[in-house]
Amino acid sequence: MRIAILGAGNVGGGLAAAAVRAGHEVVISATSADSAQRAASAAGATAAASNAAAVKDAEIVVFAVPHAAVTDIARELGEDLNGKIVADSTNPLNATYTDLTTSGTSAAENLQQQLPNARVVKAFNSIFAARHANPAEDGTPLDAFIAGDDADAKKLVGEFANSLGYRTIDAGGLRMARALEEISFLNISLNASNGWAWQSGWKLVGPTD
Amino acid sequence: MRIAILGAGNVGGGLAAAAVRAGHEVVISATSADSAQRAASAAGATAAASNAAAVKDAEIVVFAVPHAAVTDIARELGEDLNGKIVADSTNPLNATYTDLTTSGTSAAENLQQQLPNARVVKAFNSIFAARHANPAEDGTPLDAFIAGDDADAKKLVGEFANSLGYRTIDAGGLRMARALEEISFLNISLNASNGWAWQSGWKLVGPTD
Repeated sequence: MRIAILGAGNVGGGLAAAAVRAGHEVVISATSADSAQRAASAAGATAAASNAAAVKDAEIVVFAVPHAAVTDIARELGEDLNGKIVADSTNPLNATYTDLTTSGTSAAENLQQQLPNARVVKAFNSIFAARHANPAEDGTPLDAFIAGDDADAKKLVGEFANSLGYRTIDAGGLRMARALEEISFLNISLNASNGWAWQSGWKLVGPTD
Repeated sequence: MRIAILGAGNVGGGLAAAAVRAGHEVVISATSADSAQRAASAAGATAAASNAAAVKDAEIVVFAVPHAAVTDIARELGEDLNGKIVADSTNPLNATYTDLTTSGTSAAENLQQQLPNARVVKAFNSIFAARHANPAEDGTPLDAFIAGDDADAKKLVGEFANSLGYRTIDAGGLRMARALEEISFLNISLNASNGWAWQSGWKLVGPTD
């Protein structure tokens, strides 16, 4: 698949490297062309000159920026994202990591409102960046939960997550992004307050069929 | 420990049986004395004549009723719950199981507001009733997530959950009840929409130390 990753930090870089290993064509963009180039070189991906250039031919556009940057990038890209599959991997944490900023809704629902003609899928937000290099624990794949209102978009993002080594679980409609952002907040909060290694991940065990 | 379980349905009955097996003294109350008696007999517990009688000497009071019944029971018990550790195992689902009724807050936070002198701990809501008979999967304990603002109360509820065979994870303050209610809603929704066996459970895998 042709994957555009907006963001050259840990999240974007980790996902890009995993996607390249899985055989996808990956383009990275960032605020600074230099950091996009560095992240792309490290991941074996291609750097794009701009966000608009990155998304142009992409089948999946991943928002892998800090949540606070999402609104501006969505505004900047605007119609370039019409009809595009947008995977929102962000978590709307406040500045002190003590709460979410989206009481009663979710980052993904807000993004879908801002981009009514994009096909927003919540994805990858519940997985720490470092796990992409090793998406299994004791030989069992971690779960990649996705949520969205566009079935075809969700199917493609799910196939992408499976190709990286995860077990994709379709959590339901975009409203379920609230659950995915809460489980991620819980995992982040546990690692921050207990000094864990930022490697813990979610798994739904027991019969899931 | 002396455990009072308010509610004689699947949740109350399953938890009571597990608590009796773990050696605790368990009292069950319900709207109908008959159903309390039936659930108590099945679990090897004692039936109480009323909710007030059940909570009188209890170290932990578990709300194991449908969420819609919580407000009335809390009003009925009122000061009987002053200083008591109240474990809220309810999930605030709407009538069609398609959403939660607590946008922007949680059932547990609402209960704490209604009972300012009780020590509310969110607990057991993220575990299906049927799991109490078998709290492990492939030899690994499922996780029991608890949240609350009273450290001593949380400690005791955590020890109780450990005694039943779970691995307790302290999710943080009572605000984290929102996360625990969302993860439970997600699991409920997945079982309802996919026809799963209502046995799936949450596990945080990878390094948690």
